[in-house]
Amino acid sequence: MANKTVTIETSARHVHLSAADLARLFGEDYALTPRRALNQPGQFLAEERLHVEGPKGALDGVAILGPVRPATQVELSLGDARALGITVPVRASGDVQGSAGVKLVGPKGALVLKEGAIAARRHIHLSPDDAARYALHDGQVVSVRVGGPRALVFDEVVVRVSSAYNTVMHVDVDEANAAGLTGPTEAEILD
Amino acid sequence: MANKTVTIETSARHVHLSAADLARLFGEDYALTPRRALNQPGQFLAEERLHVEGPKGALDGVAILGPVRPATQVELSLGDARALGITVPVRASGDVQGSAGVKLVGPKGALVLKEGAIAARRHIHLSPDDAARYALHDGQVVSVRVGGPRALVFDEVVVRVSSAYNTVMHVDVDEANAAGLTGPTEAEILD
Repeated sequence: MANKTVTIETSARHVHLSAADLARLFGEDYALTPRRALNQPGQFLAEERLHVEGPKGALDGVAILGPVRPATQVELSLGDARALGITVPVRASGDVQGSAGVKLVGPKGALVLKEGAIAARRHIHLSPDDAARYALHDGQVVSVRVGGPRALVFDEVVVRVSSAYNTVMHVDVDEANAAGLTGPTEAEILD
Repeated sequence: MANKTVTIETSARHVHLSAADLARLFGEDYALTPRRALNQPGQFLAEERLHVEGPKGALDGVAILGPVRPATQVELSLGDARALGITVPVRASGDVQGSAGVKLVGPKGALVLKEGAIAARRHIHLSPDDAARYALHDGQVVSVRVGGPRALVFDEVVVRVSSAYNTVMHVDVDEANAAGLTGPTEAEILD
């Protein structure tokens, strides 16, 4: 059996926009400008940024990831949510029903989301090849061990398998700090 | 054998001051005013607050914990340190040699610390009775399991045993968020 290792990367706060919401915030027929490609095929960090507001505070210059998606989603750390004055559930990406509301402000308009703000559930993107090699399947929940001075084992890590993925694990900034990660870090999948 | 449980509490950023540094920041013969007692006997949150500055940012209204200690120490999260523009080591409380520098600003003066800023190593304060009951000793390193949607196991948790302690585990804000803690939470000590 192959040694089950995965590289952990940190996801900072970011927004995914629907086409309709992109038009509301940046104007009709606006297209995001890619600044750099992300690890996942076709995904990019945009040049554009957003202002995010809650009842108690705001965050400036929040990253937008492209391309547009079916639904707008705001991924925050629990520390971010506290600063904004909202309570966000820990959810898998795309699972935004009944999640927290927040206000987005762009150069051409603003938008009050009734839902869409979440803290991302930690997860592993797995290519089908690596899934076969590791004997893991889509939707499986595993644990992942990180070493070092803040060594810990993340439980409740959900595995997502798709031919659209390169293999990588994502945690948020709070989780990265808790594990003492200072950059992409090799970790061990336990199951 | 008793079930080894411990309550985890979150330590927000705070400063411990030496008597000399208290005088520099607040004036000669100044005494801190207790605002509320902490879980550990004799320790208190003070009414007074400090402004903490780094090369890239500042934190306002940082808590001071009393009484005064032999050496000044600034306990920050790694997120705080990044906002200030400094790099803090993960250290046990009191182990500040060669740690990060930071500037403290009080109502009567300011102070540039050459060292003293750390991220606290996660730890358990254990009363001698609980240490005997749990068969744990001072300096032992254990793991602690937290349940819930962000379940994880904290490794590298150092045990401190003293008759000055009530039994409680301390983590910082990043660690609390990573584990999804929203208040004092029961956890299981593994060893």
